Amino acid sequence: MAQDGALPLTLLAEQFAKLPGIGMKTAQRLAYFVMQMSDSEAEEFAKAIVYAHRTVHSCSVCQNLTDKEICPICNDPSRDHSTVCVVESPKDVAAFERTREYKGVYHVLHGLISPIDGVTPEKLRINELLHRISGGEIKEVIMATNPTPEGEATAMYLSRLLKPLGVKVTRLAFGIPIGGILEYADEMTLFKALENRNEI
Amino acid sequence: MAQDGALPLTLLAEQFAKLPGIGMKTAQRLAYFVMQMSDSEAEEFAKAIVYAHRTVHSCSVCQNLTDKEICPICNDPSRDHSTVCVVESPKDVAAFERTREYKGVYHVLHGLISPIDGVTPEKLRINELLHRISGGEIKEVIMATNPTPEGEATAMYLSRLLKPLGVKVTRLAFGIPIGGILEYADEMTLFKALENRNEI
Repeated sequence: MAQDGALPLTLLAEQFAKLPGIGMKTAQRLAYFVMQMSDSEAEEFAKAIVYAHRTVHSCSVCQNLTDKEICPICNDPSRDHSTVCVVESPKDVAAFERTREYKGVYHVLHGLISPIDGVTPEKLRINELLHRISGGEIKEVIMATNPTPEGEATAMYLSRLLKPLGVKVTRLAFGIPIGGILEYADEMTLFKALENRNEI
Repeated sequence: MAQDGALPLTLLAEQFAKLPGIGMKTAQRLAYFVMQMSDSEAEEFAKAIVYAHRTVHSCSVCQNLTDKEICPICNDPSRDHSTVCVVESPKDVAAFERTREYKGVYHVLHGLISPIDGVTPEKLRINELLHRISGGEIKEVIMATNPTPEGEATAMYLSRLLKPLGVKVTRLAFGIPIGGILEYADEMTLFKALENRNEI
């Protein structure tokens, strides 16, 4: 920032730079923007951070982020509570909800098994999932983790853990994305699309 | 966010989305990131916003942002106080300071004349500049506004205003950027580079 004197501005820029995908140059631009806000706007921004951080926590059922004890999805009697979609993070829940097609409920693992990064199964919300299944209401668990090595490993691990409990365990379909062009699809996607071909 | 229940999270994302260059999707990602911070980190972030906004204001001399009454540049006796570099915004001061070559002082206009956007000369810190010049110490004023229509118009307007006061008014050189390739230079840049050619 080389602005020497404007230390609070540098400190604020450093805070912005901690956010993912924001480098020091963008952080400085954001800090300058905050300077142009009105007093009340700046305070509202600061309050939103503290308020969200204080009130939002994991749903006691599905572990998704919520400001209630039980999240609105788990609390919705019109949803199919016998089908649970297992995802890595709250962002994935938001993505599925945008489709407006999925009527079941979710379970957020808050991570994927990754021994290299020190993420062992105990660090994920797997016990909470087992506890839900022991309730007896759940018929199907959809593994909706990403098609990455960690996502696949987590799906495999959970499927081995859950199948003996008598629930149906399924995996998301992977293949050519809608609107995608065959020519540009990578080999793995094309292979998956072939492997999972359906009769028409 | 379609997360229905996590209203504080949506509110925080909306705050982030107000920042320049941050769309709703990035804003949501940032809001989720704040959730993963520790309590003290989140509070430090919020405090930095309020603290910077409260303590940082315009230097009473050059109008640059500072947390002092007079900014360190204006307060530095080793700098050349007879040369004033006129810029649009504090970001430009930071850019010039990074060169470590400029030894004069600055004047920040906090905008450029732009009648279409309702920015008339009275809305800029021009009176403050005239007041500085009336002190008699200033010998040269360098117009360092951007080579945009607004930047050029502001430079022209100020030059007409300042010349009768007996100060030398200069303009930044525009031409091929160092490291640039002639072939890729746009017509205006090439034209300026030709027009401002120097004997070697």
